[in-house]
Amino acid sequence: MKKSENCTGVSTVTLQRPPVNSLNLELLQEFTATLDELGKSKSCGMILTSASPTVFSAGLDILEMYRPKSDRIRLFWSKLQEMWLKLYGSAYPTVAAINGHSPAGGCLLALSCDYRVMVGPKYTIGLNETQLGIIAPRFQDTMLNTIPRRQAEFALTTGRMFSTEEALNVGLIDEVATDKADAITKAESFLNKFAKIPASARHQTKLQFRKEALDNLKNNIDSDLQIFVGFLETPRIQKSLELYLESLKKKI
Amino acid sequence: MKKSENCTGVSTVTLQRPPVNSLNLELLQEFTATLDELGKSKSCGMILTSASPTVFSAGLDILEMYRPKSDRIRLFWSKLQEMWLKLYGSAYPTVAAINGHSPAGGCLLALSCDYRVMVGPKYTIGLNETQLGIIAPRFQDTMLNTIPRRQAEFALTTGRMFSTEEALNVGLIDEVATDKADAITKAESFLNKFAKIPASARHQTKLQFRKEALDNLKNNIDSDLQIFVGFLETPRIQKSLELYLESLKKKI
Amino acid sequence: MKKSENCTGVSTVTLQRPPVNSLNLELLQEFTATLDELGKSKSCGMILTSASPTVFSAGLDILEMYRPKSDRIRLFWSKLQEMWLKLYGSAYPTVAAINGHSPAGGCLLALSCDYRVMVGPKYTIGLNETQLGIIAPRFQDTMLNTIPRRQAEFALTTGRMFSTEEALNVGLIDEVATDKADAITKAESFLNKFAKIPASARHQTKLQFRKEALDNLKNNIDSDLQIFVGFLETPRIQKSLELYLESLKKKI
Repeated sequence: MKKSENCTGVSTVTLQRPPVNSLNLELLQEFTATLDELGKSKSCGMILTSASPTVFSAGLDILEMYRPKSDRIRLFWSKLQEMWLKLYGSAYPTVAAINGHSPAGGCLLALSCDYRVMVGPKYTIGLNETQLGIIAPRFQDTMLNTIPRRQAEFALTTGRMFSTEEALNVGLIDEVATDKADAITKAESFLNKFAKIPASARHQTKLQFRKEALDNLKNNIDSDLQIFVGFLETPRIQKSLELYLESLKKKI
Repeated sequence: MKKSENCTGVSTVTLQRPPVNSLNLELLQEFTATLDELGKSKSCGMILTSASPTVFSAGLDILEMYRPKSDRIRLFWSKLQEMWLKLYGSAYPTVAAINGHSPAGGCLLALSCDYRVMVGPKYTIGLNETQLGIIAPRFQDTMLNTIPRRQAEFALTTGRMFSTEEALNVGLIDEVATDKADAITKAESFLNKFAKIPASARHQTKLQFRKEALDNLKNNIDSDLQIFVGFLETPRIQKSLELYLESLKKKI
Repeated sequence: MKKSENCTGVSTVTLQRPPVNSLNLELLQEFTATLDELGKSKSCGMILTSASPTVFSAGLDILEMYRPKSDRIRLFWSKLQEMWLKLYGSAYPTVAAINGHSPAGGCLLALSCDYRVMVGPKYTIGLNETQLGIIAPRFQDTMLNTIPRRQAEFALTTGRMFSTEEALNVGLIDEVATDKADAITKAESFLNKFAKIPASARHQTKLQFRKEALDNLKNNIDSDLQIFVGFLETPRIQKSLELYLESLKKKI
């Protein structure tokens, strides 16, 4: 992950874990530390993008969840919870410059920012976890807070992946860009809207929309962890992950 | 009501109480028993449709509510509550193939399924109870969970009936069909989306969207019953139902 | 403020505090008294409009909030709370005939009615308080209950002002009118929808959509007052109001 600050104080954070920016424990730790730094440095805003030419993030690393070790899986899920609380409730504005496919946890990262610009037309985005039989407690709230409720129910029960155009029409993304540079430019343009707006009023207003979802996780952070770890231990889920990993190998 | 299962395990349930599938106690009992059967048989999904060529369901039978007998009206409303809890929270996916007009309780049946295909363009659908001065506690939540909040407030306060086209535009229905056969085909196509999705993840995800409305009824099931029965006993409501019944007779 | 009743029992209430209908304590007191009268007289409905040719209402009078006196600011905010509870929960239907610009508290008045007709295309409407660093507790709920949640978050964090066309597209207003007379005609047409609908069922249905926001204020009415008064006393906010007042003087 590399971080650069341009003259306007905007921080660009680039996910850089080849080949597809799968979120493992180490990447979550590094990203959470970066979010902390941005909070302390009173950043003007973060643009989150990817070093991969075709994938924003493939989501949670399946290898963390397949035959997990008890200590590490608990640490992994706790760090995911912590990262999400910091990203979704951040005091600085955030934009996802989505320059590639963005399934599952990749979509969660994008939905947890304040604004989404996506390179089109060929990439797809969505919370498709049900296709693997997985339900991530709480995190579905980000979809419900972004697109109409009926569309969210349909998308999440069917594990729908949206084309860029479909995502724009339903409000899952805010703008389409022609390439990564265009996405960054549009992201900066969004952040510039806040140039004259008092930061405290902006942040308090943002929290009025996100406080309920944030509190729901905070108030259930331990039980959510227990539930997810217990859920992963079921033979059915492990079999599902095994089949999925095998299907990935065949693609190579 | 007849039930058939095709080779894919999908169950088609056909409302068949001439002339307009008014929901009386017996029909609610029979339909609830069918829902129970489908739950036990682990159905791949239910398609709900009507044997009438012009009406999906005219809604609650006014004769159950006009000059009601104390025992029967309590049984009637309890059964409606039970039916709705089972339909709205069903473990198997459900589609309404709406092959005719669908006012009031007919619309409630459709809204309580997971997907709606409606034969167009000449039929109408809506929760128009306010026009009779009636408010059905809780059940309005199904409209709020389907179309945008502002549209739901407008529709429910004015007792709006939507044309098929209007219903599609606002998201009250998901697809328009040319006739009943086309509606069934499109319903099957929706159910096929779940062919490879683990049933448990699909159902848990559905409940994340519906649990609050379901719990609201469960936690108030007795008081809702008391309120509705007391409400029906007011002279004003009985007079309104009487005038409505007289207007129906004049149409014949 | 003048009030007239036409033959159908509809009351037209005209805001008339030159030059821009800023809401000061006296105007809020007079308007609240009018709302009480309408409630007692069982009005068929209220049309709220402005005597100004270019402004519906400029919102809260900044002079009430700049260097406020302790007694008066508390009275001012209490009256605003009382006015809003009466308007948003009114037993009679209400329409805003928005015949001019409608920022901040002017937009709040419009959002608290049941229906909005706006003269286009040159006027603008929005809750732009964050631009002054101000957050009005609770009242943002009216935006959230009117337009999609994602659009509301974007609009309120950026302090967005909508053109008439943008407001129509997002559902912030219901209809566009060519001039004030046309707006009044369209407002009457909306009120006529309720001619045959029992008033009690209409009002109870409206409250099902608004009860939560109303209760949130009722249950926090004193603490909200304390928070807002304390917030106004901070040097940062007073400085922001001072700069704003100076910028207004330069425009003259």
